[in-house]
Amino acid sequence: MYRRKKNALEHDQVYVIETNLDDMSPEITGYLMEKLFQRGALDVFLTPIFMKKGRPATKLSVLAEPDHRETLIEAVLTETTTFGVRYYIVERSKLTRDFVDIHTRWGVVRAKRGYLGDRLVKTAPEYEDCKKLAEQHRLPLRVIYEEAIRQINT
Amino acid sequence: MYRRKKNALEHDQVYVIETNLDDMSPEITGYLMEKLFQRGALDVFLTPIFMKKGRPATKLSVLAEPDHRETLIEAVLTETTTFGVRYYIVERSKLTRDFVDIHTRWGVVRAKRGYLGDRLVKTAPEYEDCKKLAEQHRLPLRVIYEEAIRQINT
Amino acid sequence: MYRRKKNALEHDQVYVIETNLDDMSPEITGYLMEKLFQRGALDVFLTPIFMKKGRPATKLSVLAEPDHRETLIEAVLTETTTFGVRYYIVERSKLTRDFVDIHTRWGVVRAKRGYLGDRLVKTAPEYEDCKKLAEQHRLPLRVIYEEAIRQINT
Amino acid sequence: MYRRKKNALEHDQVYVIETNLDDMSPEITGYLMEKLFQRGALDVFLTPIFMKKGRPATKLSVLAEPDHRETLIEAVLTETTTFGVRYYIVERSKLTRDFVDIHTRWGVVRAKRGYLGDRLVKTAPEYEDCKKLAEQHRLPLRVIYEEAIRQINT
Amino acid sequence: MYRRKKNALEHDQVYVIETNLDDMSPEITGYLMEKLFQRGALDVFLTPIFMKKGRPATKLSVLAEPDHRETLIEAVLTETTTFGVRYYIVERSKLTRDFVDIHTRWGVVRAKRGYLGDRLVKTAPEYEDCKKLAEQHRLPLRVIYEEAIRQINT
Amino acid sequence: MYRRKKNALEHDQVYVIETNLDDMSPEITGYLMEKLFQRGALDVFLTPIFMKKGRPATKLSVLAEPDHRETLIEAVLTETTTFGVRYYIVERSKLTRDFVDIHTRWGVVRAKRGYLGDRLVKTAPEYEDCKKLAEQHRLPLRVIYEEAIRQINT
Repeated sequence: MYRRKKNALEHDQVYVIETNLDDMSPEITGYLMEKLFQRGALDVFLTPIFMKKGRPATKLSVLAEPDHRETLIEAVLTETTTFGVRYYIVERSKLTRDFVDIHTRWGVVRAKRGYLGDRLVKTAPEYEDCKKLAEQHRLPLRVIYEEAIRQINT
Repeated sequence: MYRRKKNALEHDQVYVIETNLDDMSPEITGYLMEKLFQRGALDVFLTPIFMKKGRPATKLSVLAEPDHRETLIEAVLTETTTFGVRYYIVERSKLTRDFVDIHTRWGVVRAKRGYLGDRLVKTAPEYEDCKKLAEQHRLPLRVIYEEAIRQINT
Repeated sequence: MYRRKKNALEHDQVYVIETNLDDMSPEITGYLMEKLFQRGALDVFLTPIFMKKGRPATKLSVLAEPDHRETLIEAVLTETTTFGVRYYIVERSKLTRDFVDIHTRWGVVRAKRGYLGDRLVKTAPEYEDCKKLAEQHRLPLRVIYEEAIRQINT
Repeated sequence: MYRRKKNALEHDQVYVIETNLDDMSPEITGYLMEKLFQRGALDVFLTPIFMKKGRPATKLSVLAEPDHRETLIEAVLTETTTFGVRYYIVERSKLTRDFVDIHTRWGVVRAKRGYLGDRLVKTAPEYEDCKKLAEQHRLPLRVIYEEAIRQINT
Repeated sequence: MYRRKKNALEHDQVYVIETNLDDMSPEITGYLMEKLFQRGALDVFLTPIFMKKGRPATKLSVLAEPDHRETLIEAVLTETTTFGVRYYIVERSKLTRDFVDIHTRWGVVRAKRGYLGDRLVKTAPEYEDCKKLAEQHRLPLRVIYEEAIRQINT
Repeated sequence: MYRRKKNALEHDQVYVIETNLDDMSPEITGYLMEKLFQRGALDVFLTPIFMKKGRPATKLSVLAEPDHRETLIEAVLTETTTFGVRYYIVERSKLTRDFVDIHTRWGVVRAKRGYLGDRLVKTAPEYEDCKKLAEQHRLPLRVIYEEAIRQINT
């Protein structure tokens, strides 16, 4: 396996901002996700939840760097029907990472590599690159991924 | 165990009426459930689904006897935001059933008994009765259920 | 309310094509949805399910007109990791519909109107039009929808 | 738009109390929700989760003001089958709010208004009021909401 | 790519047997899954649903060959708390398939190959084989899968 | 009811380690759960979530004692496709507990008893014991549980 001198995992802190949406059309929730990424969210995800009075609702979760917390809270309060959000800080441990090009028979795909200390533990082909090749060559996306995996390390 | 002469399982046919709700507030969905039972639905349930454009939506499912199918379809089309519903017929196999009183230290609870042919296979205390006793005696509902189970067959 | 001479609900038949995905990356599932709409799917939706061996899987459901059934089955078998799909036919009952322009202070929004017989039962502003205005005017999408609802019938 | 002099968002802290229910009938979970609101919970919601040994379980989440934390933890430990709960504190940011009456053709509906600083950002018709009118006038709930939205600001 | 003379997709018919579980502990549901596979189920899966009275319930779905339908219905009625099941027949379209051995640096993994007509469209390493190698060599399971994918076709 | 001198609830602190899996096969997620229990996780559970680009993903949650936190974070980073995890500390309040044998007509079942202070609030038959008897005597698991409940306190 590839080896590289590296120290321990990387660490930082981010906020998780959450709110329960029980009086908003899913059309607006789908749109919202996009807007929150535009305003700097690290990640946005939705969890199906069940609330009082038989309501099949959605919990919105936004991961935000400390500098973006206030902007993102304001965006949630403005774009959605909610009257309040809750938030808390969490630690993050991350693999150190770099990027590498993978040469496939259909073109180049970038891949993200992750290291635990100095040990390479994973190589992940980038979605957008695989998607582009799949569309160009009218091939199933899974075929591109499999080909990319085959060309790693060779 | 209790025995009773009975023939095979009971059979009938019901309709499953379904629609995907992706532009309606969960507040309205919760309310809808109640309305559909009032108009004769055998059962109503909601499934979290994910739709196009990132929408966290809800599939509404209504079980209806053939005679209630049209009324219930019209109710769904009127009460919700949907422009169409789909439906199909399904077979049902059911245990034959009767009811029995269970005497607990806190009062009587009705229970539904189910038979597979002439074999008693289950006895289920009725929710509404257990709930009433739990509230009267300020006891956890699970305590009432457990007590009812203890008093079955004795 | 608006009235229009119309007969009963409209009816047709469509296929529901389903498969359980338990060995495919969600990245590919998200991509697949788009591909299936391109190949003529009436609707595509995903249901979270739990399968054997602790697998948090996804049920893919595709609604297809009879003429597109074979193409869509082939697309699912090619694009995904599945080795088989199941399908069945369902009836559909639909409101008759037409379109109308709604004039808001920020521009025109098309709306779909639905009729139960000759009775107008709903008017739904089109998502893509509302989204466009929300982005042009940097307003929350829900504000555009609310304004469109206000301008219906006036 | 309405304007009002107001300072920043309102802030407070609440507890999130959680437990995973994997050995309790959903009948009891539905009943529990009601009980927890009666004992002062700010909100209660349920999340479908998947646990070990193939169990389709439910995560219970309760939002509690600091003064109600102990009472609510005790209620969860008494009413459910769980042997332990976990909890953590979260910050909340909330719009300042007031209430206003909306006059519709079918009667009065209260609405909650939310302000970001001095800017009115949303007006939400109250569910219970809309529901009451829907039932009195035998109209779809969504029709009442839409009418209420139309009468805001006029 | 591999080619093989083959006719169209394979077809058969199976039953989908379903019931909604709203009064049974998830512990029993997890156990049930195993039992139903032992009695011949083709597949068993669970869907989180939301039922009346705020119940976070589970829809059980069983795929059964026509010859196993009655046995499996009886098993569901005996093992669970339900008093009835519903079922309907569905068509299946399947890739024709064969098996091949993949030689990896850690041992042999069987793989299932699927053909659309005479075209090989996928090769899927078998889970149980990959799992065995992962445990023997104390390697992440994803590493075994990736290695297996690399050794296909070479 | 049984009484026993006991002080208040027991307290400790644990970590919740979480990551969102959107590019990993559910086959690997199911396998992972088992591995994390082997490495000391107190609990592991999976939540269906919806992520960007239409992805039906899974949130992995691991409860860990402080001493196992680093080992478990490393296990998640090694076994899964993720490049980072987040974690936070939570308080736990637990019933004090002991174990008791329940004698049923089919054999002995251990049960866990929970006390709130000196008050016995619940007695839960152990799953593995009930399962063993169900399999030995070819009885439905729910029948064993019900019998165990009947024999508590007698």
